[in-house]
Amino acid sequence: MKSIQFNAHHSPVGAFASLTLGFPGAKGGLGHELKGPADEPFYVGLEEIDREGYYQALPFFEASDDKSADYDVEGHNAEFSYPNRISHFSWESITRQFAACTDEWSAGDLKFRVITPYPTVPDPGLGDAEALKNAVCPGVLLEVEVDNSSSQRARKVFLGYAGSDRYDGVRVIGQDGLIGVGQGVATAIATKEPGFKAGVAWQPEMVVNSRQPDNEPFLIGSTGILWTTVPAGEKRTFRFAVGFFREGTATTGIKTRYYYRRFFNSIEEVLNHTLSRADQLIAEAKIQDASFANGLTEDRAFMHAHAVRSYYGATELLEREDGTPLWVVNEGEYRMMNTLDLTIDQLFFELKMNPWTVRNELDLFVERYAYEDTIQFPGDDTKHPGGLSFSHDMGVSNNFSSPGNSSYEQGGLKGCFSYMTAEQLLNWSICSSVYGLKTADHSWIKGKQETLKACLASMLNRDNPNPAERNGVISLDSSRCFGGAEITTYDSLDVSLGQARNNLYLAVKGWAAYKLIAKVFADLGLTQESQTANAQAKKAEATILAAVEPDGTMPAIIGEGVPARLIPAIEGLVYLDYIGFDLSESKPLVEALKTHLETVLKKGVCKFEDGGWKLSSTSDNSWLSKIYLCQAIAEKILGFAPDHEADKAHVAWLLDPANAYFAWSDQMLAGKACGSRYYPRGVTSTLWLD
Amino acid sequence: MKSIQFNAHHSPVGAFASLTLGFPGAKGGLGHELKGPADEPFYVGLEEIDREGYYQALPFFEASDDKSADYDVEGHNAEFSYPNRISHFSWESITRQFAACTDEWSAGDLKFRVITPYPTVPDPGLGDAEALKNAVCPGVLLEVEVDNSSSQRARKVFLGYAGSDRYDGVRVIGQDGLIGVGQGVATAIATKEPGFKAGVAWQPEMVVNSRQPDNEPFLIGSTGILWTTVPAGEKRTFRFAVGFFREGTATTGIKTRYYYRRFFNSIEEVLNHTLSRADQLIAEAKIQDASFANGLTEDRAFMHAHAVRSYYGATELLEREDGTPLWVVNEGEYRMMNTLDLTIDQLFFELKMNPWTVRNELDLFVERYAYEDTIQFPGDDTKHPGGLSFSHDMGVSNNFSSPGNSSYEQGGLKGCFSYMTAEQLLNWSICSSVYGLKTADHSWIKGKQETLKACLASMLNRDNPNPAERNGVISLDSSRCFGGAEITTYDSLDVSLGQARNNLYLAVKGWAAYKLIAKVFADLGLTQESQTANAQAKKAEATILAAVEPDGTMPAIIGEGVPARLIPAIEGLVYLDYIGFDLSESKPLVEALKTHLETVLKKGVCKFEDGGWKLSSTSDNSWLSKIYLCQAIAEKILGFAPDHEADKAHVAWLLDPANAYFAWSDQMLAGKACGSRYYPRGVTSTLWLD
Repeated sequence: MKSIQFNAHHSPVGAFASLTLGFPGAKGGLGHELKGPADEPFYVGLEEIDREGYYQALPFFEASDDKSADYDVEGHNAEFSYPNRISHFSWESITRQFAACTDEWSAGDLKFRVITPYPTVPDPGLGDAEALKNAVCPGVLLEVEVDNSSSQRARKVFLGYAGSDRYDGVRVIGQDGLIGVGQGVATAIATKEPGFKAGVAWQPEMVVNSRQPDNEPFLIGSTGILWTTVPAGEKRTFRFAVGFFREGTATTGIKTRYYYRRFFNSIEEVLNHTLSRADQLIAEAKIQDASFANGLTEDRAFMHAHAVRSYYGATELLEREDGTPLWVVNEGEYRMMNTLDLTIDQLFFELKMNPWTVRNELDLFVERYAYEDTIQFPGDDTKHPGGLSFSHDMGVSNNFSSPGNSSYEQGGLKGCFSYMTAEQLLNWSICSSVYGLKTADHSWIKGKQETLKACLASMLNRDNPNPAERNGVISLDSSRCFGGAEITTYDSLDVSLGQARNNLYLAVKGWAAYKLIAKVFADLGLTQESQTANAQAKKAEATILAAVEPDGTMPAIIGEGVPARLIPAIEGLVYLDYIGFDLSESKPLVEALKTHLETVLKKGVCKFEDGGWKLSSTSDNSWLSKIYLCQAIAEKILGFAPDHEADKAHVAWLLDPANAYFAWSDQMLAGKACGSRYYPRGVTSTLWLD
Repeated sequence: MKSIQFNAHHSPVGAFASLTLGFPGAKGGLGHELKGPADEPFYVGLEEIDREGYYQALPFFEASDDKSADYDVEGHNAEFSYPNRISHFSWESITRQFAACTDEWSAGDLKFRVITPYPTVPDPGLGDAEALKNAVCPGVLLEVEVDNSSSQRARKVFLGYAGSDRYDGVRVIGQDGLIGVGQGVATAIATKEPGFKAGVAWQPEMVVNSRQPDNEPFLIGSTGILWTTVPAGEKRTFRFAVGFFREGTATTGIKTRYYYRRFFNSIEEVLNHTLSRADQLIAEAKIQDASFANGLTEDRAFMHAHAVRSYYGATELLEREDGTPLWVVNEGEYRMMNTLDLTIDQLFFELKMNPWTVRNELDLFVERYAYEDTIQFPGDDTKHPGGLSFSHDMGVSNNFSSPGNSSYEQGGLKGCFSYMTAEQLLNWSICSSVYGLKTADHSWIKGKQETLKACLASMLNRDNPNPAERNGVISLDSSRCFGGAEITTYDSLDVSLGQARNNLYLAVKGWAAYKLIAKVFADLGLTQESQTANAQAKKAEATILAAVEPDGTMPAIIGEGVPARLIPAIEGLVYLDYIGFDLSESKPLVEALKTHLETVLKKGVCKFEDGGWKLSSTSDNSWLSKIYLCQAIAEKILGFAPDHEADKAHVAWLLDPANAYFAWSDQMLAGKACGSRYYPRGVTSTLWLD
């Protein structure tokens, strides 16, 4: 039996919001723009069948404290406190049905469902306002089902949460046909079901067991509760909406507001709209639950559902002051915006769900986050012409960084927080080529041909300033490093994946980039550029093949004598396969990568003792998003059988009690989420379905 | 030597904002709508004279942690951390000059001043937009003075803070002629001084000791630092502005925005406006520093300055959707809005500073927070006609409560959180009468004559339903108590001040209320109502005098045999004296109260062992705001000499290390701030000056 004690996102699309639930205690709740769960108590409870005034609730809260002591310092007023009457359903008594869009808990006579379909977000430029409004409505649907058919008496049922915002208190919503509770104008839960009442107090008992039901809400409390009574002998299903709302400036640097502000002027409108579409939302969720799991094993269906949820909780559709849309994926606990080395991993999922968002991201990289540099050999201050690249990200925590700069990259370093100039150049080149080739958006790619030419020139320069000495692989570092060294997306890994120069992972990725832009150039009739790119691809192929050692593996850093061996050597294959390249043209390299992977994919080299994949033989640091990606490549391109033992290990990592609080996490140090927690990048798992 | 280690508010007017500083550690900072200090590190530091790259700073931060571990999980990148190079100036080396509007720290060659004059806020209805803009501009002026005249080398000086908001990160501001750092669009510090640079990092050392000065800001950090270099042999003074800004909906229930939004569209505009008025702000602060201390002993000048600061940090000028202004005083750590039993204590200060705000508060009580009830005798369910009263407050934590209801009052109780119906009726009646009589705002008081008639009727009913049995004192409880008992503003005190019925404190206050409204009615030509009120005052006087015991004291509860004795018995006198009543007409009562106070004002009865005043002989609970009020009454009306020993004790309470974090606090349990911390009510001390 796998644990069901894990947090998962339950999010609208593009609202950077999440009802996070599932981990024991006050460890979830209604989070807005947060780096982790909101750590709020969340209540769904039902009166016990045989004890009036006693309740059992899902265990997403801690036992209540008595907060009256701050007001009643001499303790004369014990009369104000209520005895705790709400116990947790035991975890043993709870079952959980977890899919990508529906998460259902059952315990005793209570069922609780959170329903979050992920509608396609229409390209705002195409103007289908109604579809866009529905897609980005920042609401989430809940259902509570009470089976009181075997009871001889009416029982109370309640739902609510305690807000954790430090500015705005919790209020009662009683307008626009709604009854609800909310924190300021930012978060709320409401219903239109007849018979519900709303209360605010320090503890749910003050509302559901109120000694004076005619009391007005005690707004000093921070716990908002909705409740009603289910008659004896009856079954009832109640619907609720969770709403999120941010009114004003959403981001600085580039001033924006949330795109949904075009359609909604208040959280009450959001709540009403969500409830009005309940039937469609449930139907959509059902269809998507099936399609997101289609053909997957139980372990993979679980991981994919979990990853999709964490991705959507990080999405944010903004509107710039000129009315244009701006799509952001926030980087989980780090909250960096549109980190380009995540964009390339999320590419496959975004192209499936909302292809225009890829274009939107790539356009903004060109518009604002491109830069030109000079480059230098290690240990040599001579500056050679470099060329175009792109910043690591576009900012962090709602602040867009200045043009040409990320929030992350700093000069003077050789490790974490150094520049990723070469890798981001490859990432933009690959993403734009894949987008253009996959979507056949000819006018867009044609509009980018000068940028792609500049990318090619920049890649050539970074290989070697002297054309005669080029080998297809990155050999120089950006002068932005001030004598430091460029790193890769595996920023906190040891040199095996941390160093960009001569890195095998980047070499294969660079080879793929050359081949992709060669094809784009060919399609654009730019024969000479296409030939140049293809020639570089051949050089890269030769360099990589020359690095094969007698045991059939290739070292992590080409030509530097490192012992490390890498799984991500194979990453580059995926982009070519994805757009339908005939890989038989590159059979020697593909075969060499296959042999490499076969050789390293064993315990003690690139597998942990539990069978989980270990990206580098010399580090315990592993990224699940990249494992999923490499699994798909191994199976779909290199002909490996699915590694069920590894899947089981990866599921166990995510469900480890030390990790399960963070929903889906990426970076695992020997199976413990140590960074990149609460993270959007896991949707590389979408490749399992193709 | 008194301790200088205490937090104090440094606030603009009406912005519900505070730069709180002075307590050791990261225990102050830029707080917006908070119930206490923001708990942010705040940095003002200067390079050491003889060690380059080492700094001393005021001790308002903790030593830095290395936050890179979350990103660099295997610790390859120690290169990114900077050694701690900033030490605290020792408290022994620091002097602090603390006045109402200027707070200056000196240490070594550094001086740091925070300048917060409190301009009169013009009545918005009178339309002086420029004066109003200046008055409510949500900015605070800072000055940093560096004396490098004895140094042979240039030294760096820096200023900054780490933002504690969980939504928005810290950014660099470099527009509109400003150089600054800010958290989202909500808080910021900026300067226009030439030569300053801004950086963001995890620790100030990364900015001021940057190994790569050309690096862009590291926006992942949450610490924003402004710095420059002072040449050898020179003295420099630099000016900065702190800004606060909240864009959208400020409150629910009554939807409002901050009034300053009429004048400012961004925090940058606030920063610029504050800096542009620096000379005037400094001049105003100097004048006010003197006037707030005028004629006061050092102890009293300290307490009054402290109280004034805490009052302004709680003030909030809002604009309703129809454009009308709404003045709120937030209730310190409790954040209740316009608590009426605080309004009456703040009355004297508000009438001095901004009389129209009193009218504004009283109007909203009539418009939205008035109610009619029935009343009952204790232990008897029979409902008698009650009448008009007003809710305890208007809401809490930015949420206005529903019409006729406070956020606080609950039925079914006998202690804390019960109704204050009778007391709030007296409070509104007294405040409106005092406002009308003091300001001679005849048209306003004439417009309220029906309300005042209803107040009188309600007071009569609460005395006794049978006119023949009336004794001028409250004898019934509101039916809103559902059989519980009304309480007083001393909500968490024992029955001596906690019970409303027959309470000596309310009896004298009621006597004063009758006399005040009698005068108002007489002025309005309502002779009969005036006579009725005066007759009730006489009955109250007789009842109170009849309660005098052989020792010359009166019991806290009249006729119930309680042993408790109260200082606040004398409170009612102040309102009559304040508007110039001839108290010789009430000589027997005044003399009785004087004898009462003389008798109880001794250690073991109504003084603590340290000489501090103890409001009730049977409780260790004491409220400083009420002590200040009663001190003023004792001295100005009853002829007592100032109690310097008590003042010294009260200062010691505020400066106790257990209390000094909360700036000015009201409720002291044997000298420990146990409730009503970070509180606005202390401005009763304004009566010391009159």
